[in-house]
Amino acid sequence: MSVAPGASLRAIREAKPLVHQITNYVVMNETANATLALGALPVMAHAVEEVEEMVGLASALVLNIGTLSAPWIESMLRAGKAASARGIPVVLDPVGAGATRLRTETALRLLDVVDVTVLRGNAGEVASLVGVEAEVRGVESIGSAESPADLAREAARRFGCVASVTGPVDQVSDGQASIAVANGHALLATVSGTGCMSSALTGCFLAGKPDDPVAAAAEALVAFGVAGEDAAEGARGPGSFHVGLYDALAALDPETLDGRARVEP
Amino acid sequence: MSVAPGASLRAIREAKPLVHQITNYVVMNETANATLALGALPVMAHAVEEVEEMVGLASALVLNIGTLSAPWIESMLRAGKAASARGIPVVLDPVGAGATRLRTETALRLLDVVDVTVLRGNAGEVASLVGVEAEVRGVESIGSAESPADLAREAARRFGCVASVTGPVDQVSDGQASIAVANGHALLATVSGTGCMSSALTGCFLAGKPDDPVAAAAEALVAFGVAGEDAAEGARGPGSFHVGLYDALAALDPETLDGRARVEP
Amino acid sequence: MSVAPGASLRAIREAKPLVHQITNYVVMNETANATLALGALPVMAHAVEEVEEMVGLASALVLNIGTLSAPWIESMLRAGKAASARGIPVVLDPVGAGATRLRTETALRLLDVVDVTVLRGNAGEVASLVGVEAEVRGVESIGSAESPADLAREAARRFGCVASVTGPVDQVSDGQASIAVANGHALLATVSGTGCMSSALTGCFLAGKPDDPVAAAAEALVAFGVAGEDAAEGARGPGSFHVGLYDALAALDPETLDGRARVEP
Repeated sequence: MSVAPGASLRAIREAKPLVHQITNYVVMNETANATLALGALPVMAHAVEEVEEMVGLASALVLNIGTLSAPWIESMLRAGKAASARGIPVVLDPVGAGATRLRTETALRLLDVVDVTVLRGNAGEVASLVGVEAEVRGVESIGSAESPADLAREAARRFGCVASVTGPVDQVSDGQASIAVANGHALLATVSGTGCMSSALTGCFLAGKPDDPVAAAAEALVAFGVAGEDAAEGARGPGSFHVGLYDALAALDPETLDGRARVEP
Repeated sequence: MSVAPGASLRAIREAKPLVHQITNYVVMNETANATLALGALPVMAHAVEEVEEMVGLASALVLNIGTLSAPWIESMLRAGKAASARGIPVVLDPVGAGATRLRTETALRLLDVVDVTVLRGNAGEVASLVGVEAEVRGVESIGSAESPADLAREAARRFGCVASVTGPVDQVSDGQASIAVANGHALLATVSGTGCMSSALTGCFLAGKPDDPVAAAAEALVAFGVAGEDAAEGARGPGSFHVGLYDALAALDPETLDGRARVEP
Repeated sequence: MSVAPGASLRAIREAKPLVHQITNYVVMNETANATLALGALPVMAHAVEEVEEMVGLASALVLNIGTLSAPWIESMLRAGKAASARGIPVVLDPVGAGATRLRTETALRLLDVVDVTVLRGNAGEVASLVGVEAEVRGVESIGSAESPADLAREAARRFGCVASVTGPVDQVSDGQASIAVANGHALLATVSGTGCMSSALTGCFLAGKPDDPVAAAAEALVAFGVAGEDAAEGARGPGSFHVGLYDALAALDPETLDGRARVEP
């Protein structure tokens, strides 16, 4: 495991991997633009008739349950199984797990049926999935009974994947090793869909580094957090911060990124 | 009835009420971000399997028919009935009523079956619902045979709710009392979805003041209008105005908001 | 055929034609706002129950297959046939044709069943439809075996429509005459949905000039390209460029637009 976001970013921009996203209506434009701004290529496709074919062209799959319905669950299952069968890395963002049974059960079903590589959620969502007491208000984590570091370790062990629990300090774990990422800015919490963007970017970094998902997940959070720090400069509120985030992602410098990482193993 | 947007805004930011929105694809990100920027928490959920559970967690429900289809109508009916049964306030935005039968009939059906608290639409849409001659081009109001003040009063009486008719001067009525709100800016008409945002914010203010829906509806329009006035300063066109709107909503000052209200009873 | 974008833009702003768009989830807000910023009125409607009625109110129809599913294909077929029957011009944007069979076959079916006026796509998509070897990565054109000018001519002949193939230099052809449009900026490729926006604007110009679709398609690309050039000034990256694009579309000056056109017959 070696966290080297600069080298990974350079590799992503050279290879321009395709990242297939089956995500929610609220953030489709935003995660597509974050993916493009980083340097990868997004594609959104959800029809049962094409998801298996599309994911076969992709280097990573991102599943996001933010605006679920029955046909989309079917598509996520099909795409996820096809990705698993071909060894394509899968990110699951369990948006709103803990708020309703449909979301909790769908996330658990996807974790059961699909070979999820990285589970990326907030503390309340991940706590709900591992059965720890937590409060989720809609899609917002209000709090949980365990620390994010413990939640990440426990979720990783329970589901046999890497768990990436984001918050003021992010925690990434494969059940053994853990990495804390302290990059980011408070303004990220004021824009809808920044969690979803971090999942999309996790897909981009996984595409470039499928054999080291702990490092890839941490690198994605470093890159996104640094972009957030840059976007916060000169922002006048959530609107201008949001715009600046795409500018900052595109301007991320592979040469200086490692030096700006605030990572603790 | 007391219009006190400053105190209401302060209360919203403290309580951070959850506002469940079943809205159209075009504006989901925009109304989510407007809700967040004001200080409340948005959640978008439309699956029949979860809308009743989700609305039970919310402090207000916003129904918006901008991109209807049969399954979404079913979800709106279920969520609306569940909200009515629990006394949760409901906002209906009849986007494009008058343009097609599906939209007019769906809006009327929701008004019939659901205990709608506030009907928030433009003059053409509201005129179409009360049977007054009007021209609606797509989702744009071109004109109506009655004044907005008369339309608001008539719609409120007809449907037994508060009617909030927005335009250059907004008119809010419960069928008896009426309030005119003159805040706002012409640039609001140049951005798609600003009407939908005003409905979302109406939901936020209703969440904090469910017992005085006339005041809540007027306060929402004052807050949104003042944010529009602030965003217009320095805007170079609809794009920068749109961005500035979120900055301005987040920067709204409860201390000065009452003094900036241009309200006439 | 006379390319006069200034006069056409002035006419659009006066008539404010309604442009019905059945488009993908990723770009709905963006194409609506681009349409509004130019000076036309967008409406998004996809329910089978209303598409025929809605398109009857419109001056142009834009079909975009970027996030297909079975019910949306049905809606596009119905709306397209209704438009054809009434002589309403239709734009088809075959997003991702060549990437999956569903997309290629749906685009070909729409071209077969609907009287498509303008086919607007990138080189990889159009090459896939005419059976020329090409690489499409998701929704991105990586390359094709024929030049864009040849592709445009061949597609126009094959499908009996105007073909508008966009890229660094756009090519518009009705199978006989051809127009090259060299307006635009490299930043357009860094924002998701700019191709879709150009299709929406093609609908706007067709609404105002239905009898000269080659000229209308070229004028749309001139207007969009000039707006892109203006938005690039002062942009700090894809986020601020995207915002500036709406400002620039709204600020397009009919007086100077013809002089800025970089068009070669």
